[in-house]
Amino acid sequence: MTVDHLGSAPDFGLGWLDASGPHSDIVLSTRVRLARNLHGYPYVARARDEDREAILGAISRAAETGEMPSGTVVMPVAEMDERTRRILLERRLISSDLAGRADSGPGKGAAVVAAPGEPVSIMVNEEDHLRLQSLVSGLRVMEAWNLADQIDDALGNGLHLAYHHDFGYLTSCPTNTGTGLRASALVHLPGLVLTKEIEKVLKGIGQVGLTVRGLYGEGSDVVGNFFQISNQTTLGKSEEDLVDHLGRIVSTVIQTEIQARQVLMRDAGSVTEDKIWRAYGLLRYARLLSYKDLMQLLSGVRLGASLRLLPGLEVVTLNGIMMFSQAAHLDRAAGRELSGPERQAHRAAYVRKVLGDESRPPTSGAAG
Amino acid sequence: MTVDHLGSAPDFGLGWLDASGPHSDIVLSTRVRLARNLHGYPYVARARDEDREAILGAISRAAETGEMPSGTVVMPVAEMDERTRRILLERRLISSDLAGRADSGPGKGAAVVAAPGEPVSIMVNEEDHLRLQSLVSGLRVMEAWNLADQIDDALGNGLHLAYHHDFGYLTSCPTNTGTGLRASALVHLPGLVLTKEIEKVLKGIGQVGLTVRGLYGEGSDVVGNFFQISNQTTLGKSEEDLVDHLGRIVSTVIQTEIQARQVLMRDAGSVTEDKIWRAYGLLRYARLLSYKDLMQLLSGVRLGASLRLLPGLEVVTLNGIMMFSQAAHLDRAAGRELSGPERQAHRAAYVRKVLGDESRPPTSGAAG
Repeated sequence: MTVDHLGSAPDFGLGWLDASGPHSDIVLSTRVRLARNLHGYPYVARARDEDREAILGAISRAAETGEMPSGTVVMPVAEMDERTRRILLERRLISSDLAGRADSGPGKGAAVVAAPGEPVSIMVNEEDHLRLQSLVSGLRVMEAWNLADQIDDALGNGLHLAYHHDFGYLTSCPTNTGTGLRASALVHLPGLVLTKEIEKVLKGIGQVGLTVRGLYGEGSDVVGNFFQISNQTTLGKSEEDLVDHLGRIVSTVIQTEIQARQVLMRDAGSVTEDKIWRAYGLLRYARLLSYKDLMQLLSGVRLGASLRLLPGLEVVTLNGIMMFSQAAHLDRAAGRELSGPERQAHRAAYVRKVLGDESRPPTSGAAG
Repeated sequence: MTVDHLGSAPDFGLGWLDASGPHSDIVLSTRVRLARNLHGYPYVARARDEDREAILGAISRAAETGEMPSGTVVMPVAEMDERTRRILLERRLISSDLAGRADSGPGKGAAVVAAPGEPVSIMVNEEDHLRLQSLVSGLRVMEAWNLADQIDDALGNGLHLAYHHDFGYLTSCPTNTGTGLRASALVHLPGLVLTKEIEKVLKGIGQVGLTVRGLYGEGSDVVGNFFQISNQTTLGKSEEDLVDHLGRIVSTVIQTEIQARQVLMRDAGSVTEDKIWRAYGLLRYARLLSYKDLMQLLSGVRLGASLRLLPGLEVVTLNGIMMFSQAAHLDRAAGRELSGPERQAHRAAYVRKVLGDESRPPTSGAAG
């Protein structure tokens, strides 16, 4: 079973899985996204097919002449098959809006620009003409910002971007105007959930101008105790201030989570260990797994790996499971569109294979 | 951890665990019990301390002179420590009534007679002066009856039993009068429960004069899909007819259960396999297990072992877990009275040890 190739580009959007960043057991990834528009074209919502095609043309030329990462490819959404779009969605390189526009008129000019092995990518003609993003492992807001900024510069040299000297970058939605910057961190907070402190922490995050969402962004449920923390405002502060603010708040959340875990292990250590091992036992032996099921079990096991209660099990393994057991990735590995029950069986088989190969808790641990 | 000794008598009541009898994956054990009273003494409920002591004296003498199994010992309940009484209760060699009378006046004359390695035992001065029982693996009603009958003969030669030529053996409770025989089979019916046919089957059993109870007899809940099927009446039929009737009905129940399992595997095979493997995963890795938890998981795993879905896992192993992870057995293995949470941890550790040592499903099976 090979699930690590997307056509000719092996690892679009997979860099963060290596868990190489700081606190990557708690902060899965940091993402910085910049919204940009070209001067002289209507915003996407009001653009005609020709406008969007012209915009894509301009961006493609800029990408060719600018200092873009080697191997950069422009992938028109209309040319992607259904599965590729779903794969890019699961990799967080395309929005469901953009992926869904592929086959109709508004799909004209819609594209994803990415390079293998690189943490940066671009959506073209999504809500804004350009949405640049960087996606890195762990809590690395400044690095993520620098990466996005470099691509912004590399492309911007060849493009005339819509910029107002009072407002900053102009965007389709006013909430993005200014820096056009949205920075977010995907954090895993089982300790705060289990100690029931999470509501207080989320409220605190809201009070300092940040917002919290579920795993798949706006409107999605919180599954498996994974939360996305991001800035709400983009205007009136510098990019550095915005990412620095996010970084400081997420650092505080990490410390609160670590404390919650200490309290948990002190006051309910055996119950918590039991939860963790039961999650491991189910992942290791289940024959059917829904994605929600999986995420909830991964949450327990991730806590166990982070607390070093599951010897030999690494966070990088769990990141991989999280990515490659998503629906489109499983379909791709199977070489066909799976039915719902088939996919649950393939997911469980994939998880067993990974855990069987990569993690064998010693018998002494099992008999402890 | 040694959990297989009870003082000097290693295996009182453990013979059935070997799963040597027919259909022992579905029928855990068959038990035949005979109620007898001595002529010339009041029934236990109305007996004075001296009466009961005289009864025990008469029975002890009969046991010494009769053809009893070698190593037969008479164990007065009053001389047993609390844990021994609980162990005998878990082995189904003593009733909670008799065990509870140990320290008070009514405890005088109360005793258990048993021999190591033998399937027969006797309660003295429980509801009747004598309650002889045989307990064997699988569905073996005629053998169980013969074993009980042999002991009845061996003892009866030296005793004058209360017998009426119209009514048969006279007993304290009229429902036992006649043969004084109660035969029961402990059966595991997960297929009928999962296919929701169990109610119909239980109703049918009731209509042919048999009764169904939970694992621990009258008034106990059905846990883990284990049911006790026994005869209700003891009068008006021969012993052979009674045990033959039970045997035929239980045989029918076994066939119905096997058919239900076939339907289950045909119509919901992957869901059933998932249930079985999840139960196995939890047993294999849980850190805390209540006995109810354990029995429910053992039910799934027993079904899996019976269907040969869990390679290398034998029913005899599961019988052992069922016996030795009961509270008093765990306390005995620990050498002290465990607290509730401690006992859950010891139970989980014991189960992990047994499954870790005795069952290693091949990797190919796990990655299936």
